[in-house]
Amino acid sequence: MASTEFDLIARYFEHQSVNRRDVALAIGDDCALLSVPTGSHLAVSTDSLVAGTHFLADADPALIAHKALASNLSDLAAMGATPAWVSLALTMPEPNEAWLSQFCEGFFALAEYFNVQLIGGDTTKGPLSITLTVHGFVPEGKALTRAGANSGDWIYVTGNLGDSAAGLAILLNEVTVEDDALRNTLLERHFKAHPRILAGQALIGIASAALDISDGLISDLGHILKRSQVSAVIDVDKLPLSDELLTFESDRQKAQQLALTSGEEYELCFTVPEENRGAVDTSLAHSGVKVTCIGQLRPGQGIQLTQNDKLLDWQLHGFDHFAE
Amino acid sequence: MASTEFDLIARYFEHQSVNRRDVALAIGDDCALLSVPTGSHLAVSTDSLVAGTHFLADADPALIAHKALASNLSDLAAMGATPAWVSLALTMPEPNEAWLSQFCEGFFALAEYFNVQLIGGDTTKGPLSITLTVHGFVPEGKALTRAGANSGDWIYVTGNLGDSAAGLAILLNEVTVEDDALRNTLLERHFKAHPRILAGQALIGIASAALDISDGLISDLGHILKRSQVSAVIDVDKLPLSDELLTFESDRQKAQQLALTSGEEYELCFTVPEENRGAVDTSLAHSGVKVTCIGQLRPGQGIQLTQNDKLLDWQLHGFDHFAE
Repeated sequence: MASTEFDLIARYFEHQSVNRRDVALAIGDDCALLSVPTGSHLAVSTDSLVAGTHFLADADPALIAHKALASNLSDLAAMGATPAWVSLALTMPEPNEAWLSQFCEGFFALAEYFNVQLIGGDTTKGPLSITLTVHGFVPEGKALTRAGANSGDWIYVTGNLGDSAAGLAILLNEVTVEDDALRNTLLERHFKAHPRILAGQALIGIASAALDISDGLISDLGHILKRSQVSAVIDVDKLPLSDELLTFESDRQKAQQLALTSGEEYELCFTVPEENRGAVDTSLAHSGVKVTCIGQLRPGQGIQLTQNDKLLDWQLHGFDHFAE
Repeated sequence: MASTEFDLIARYFEHQSVNRRDVALAIGDDCALLSVPTGSHLAVSTDSLVAGTHFLADADPALIAHKALASNLSDLAAMGATPAWVSLALTMPEPNEAWLSQFCEGFFALAEYFNVQLIGGDTTKGPLSITLTVHGFVPEGKALTRAGANSGDWIYVTGNLGDSAAGLAILLNEVTVEDDALRNTLLERHFKAHPRILAGQALIGIASAALDISDGLISDLGHILKRSQVSAVIDVDKLPLSDELLTFESDRQKAQQLALTSGEEYELCFTVPEENRGAVDTSLAHSGVKVTCIGQLRPGQGIQLTQNDKLLDWQLHGFDHFAE
């Protein structure tokens, strides 16, 4: 007997180990019913991943699931929010149980790590794509937005930058890497980003603005600059580069350019007023996340790249799906 | 200069006339920030509409938008919830501005009618599809679920049934209807369902269970029966049929079968204990929605169809995307 849509949903999505007390009704009715804590704002973000655009259709389903959920949770991290629930709209050409099983494995592993409960969604027939909507909580008036930065604030990033672009280049066979360990490490950096949830929460009350790096530092930082009406100066020699990236790309200038434009990093970029600089290190110590100051905000518009206090004229572009 | 993804989003989705006081931050940051009223549950539902599966790719974009939002709001109606916010994930092959403009017209017209604010989403490149996640409020412990029905409760539906299937048959050129007015009326019934929000709210405290008819009465009622552990007897002569349906399909038995299986009706099916039957009419009077009692719940499993107190042996199937 053929699997029906409802059987599929029931079998793969109704059973999960996360059962939150703030979920009064989860999957199986017309809506989920949920409780938001008093004094908290609900933070909501939606992301779509489409086969052929965001991943190759034959990619490991567990990695696709991880990437989809990690990128979505990263938006909560960028607001300083605590994750709570996620809904999943899954469109696939046919009810492929082997694929679904692996997808669920990757999805629920990450969901369980962050205590996120799947509260519903939709399973439909069509070209492969995944749309997630995550929900989290953040104390009212405390969320890290893009609009709060001021001239003089320092610019920070978490982790290292550029590894995701290197992994993508390997994945797309644009480059050949002989060293299997290096190859696998960079591929994993591309696929298995770790959302900076703890770091985001720790930055509440300290950072003046924040976002996550999904389209490339240059492109994303531009959103803070536009919303906050400031410009930025970045010292390219301060960009945090992994040893693996510098092995992959031994030309340091090219590695720095990768770090500036690499999308899907899911590191946080945030700004900090002078008086809070000391608090950054202490508050992030428990999260185990490296942070690096890469520049400073100024009056005016745009981004200036410098090296040894000299202005660079690198022409770089962030990632944009519809740009020509 | 080519439109970038960000330009598109900004131009078409950032400006809307609904600005709710419970939206602290809408489109343009990593997350939307929202307030849920104290004492209310948040009700959340997700629906995907995929070109080629749920609509024809060349269908009127305004009608696609209406259908997508109406079907999603209908899930809130089925819980008795009051709509508040919606997020929109839109995937399209290219940034077609004429298409987007018409889509937004249909989308915002319905959103404004129900005072629903667009709070965010994602615009991506790929095969045309729309995924919406609606959010609404319902007093804690008062939502209409599928699990509360009991043997002896009466089964009701709002509006008429079968028109959507007739409209779909016309759309797919499975039948030819010479009468332009009839043809247009039935097509409109298929595309322009009106979510029964007011009726759902009015049924709180009166109905024991409810859902909306998206896959066909027979199929959807089955969910209430399964969750509530009861069976149903439906008198097919009580099914509410429009004059238009009976003109389209003059064989009354065939019209009744259409009413039982027609998907995407977005009428409510709900159950009412004997002692609340009088309250149904009075409480729904202000909503202007017709309701019809079509049968009764019994112990056991399954659905029995009757006519003049005789059992029918009609073989019918609800709509299922993956069924063979």
